[in-house]
Amino acid sequence: MLEDEHFEVINNRNCVMIYAMDILGGKWRLPILWKLYQNKTMRYNELKRSLVGITNIMLTRSLQSLEENGLVNRVEFSQIPPRVEYSLTDSGLELVPALEVIYNWGQDKIST
Amino acid sequence: MLEDEHFEVINNRNCVMIYAMDILGGKWRLPILWKLYQNKTMRYNELKRSLVGITNIMLTRSLQSLEENGLVNRVEFSQIPPRVEYSLTDSGLELVPALEVIYNWGQDKIST
Repeated sequence: MLEDEHFEVINNRNCVMIYAMDILGGKWRLPILWKLYQNKTMRYNELKRSLVGITNIMLTRSLQSLEENGLVNRVEFSQIPPRVEYSLTDSGLELVPALEVIYNWGQDKIST
Repeated sequence: MLEDEHFEVINNRNCVMIYAMDILGGKWRLPILWKLYQNKTMRYNELKRSLVGITNIMLTRSLQSLEENGLVNRVEFSQIPPRVEYSLTDSGLELVPALEVIYNWGQDKIST
């Protein structure tokens, strides 16, 4: 990021939120983070099974994006068959309080 | 919502999060809620000016969706020229702690 852009972004409270939503927005990213928070580490197929309705393309893209943005760790074990495990990074864990608020809010809303 | 669907949704922690993201996901909805939280009530044009890059279509659709889902109040004053003001409902205010976590997270991430 250029120095000027950086300056502009951190001085605009609106832009911080838009920046955050570029990383977190979309249908699947927060549900993926929530699943990883609940289960600590998960394999690709476990994640896929737990997220009803997600396609391989959406799961792969979401995981790549979350990994690139430092929210999710991807650890590959050299074995046959290959095993890949996903978990939250420290930066991902910082979002857990927000996930909990959103989860509780959703649950209240569904029950009323 | 049918009784069976309702039962299924509230018994699936994954579905609650997906349900919440159907309402909150997308690039603009949390930034709009955040702006309304900071400014209490805002007119359409104030919102538009404060959300750099948003189009009329995106702002109108996002506000309609947030209003339909009970997050945003829309109050129309019968005067010339007509005045419309938006603010957070109690349900919208419940999300503020999540918005604050996401905002602080975004700010930390931009500064590092």
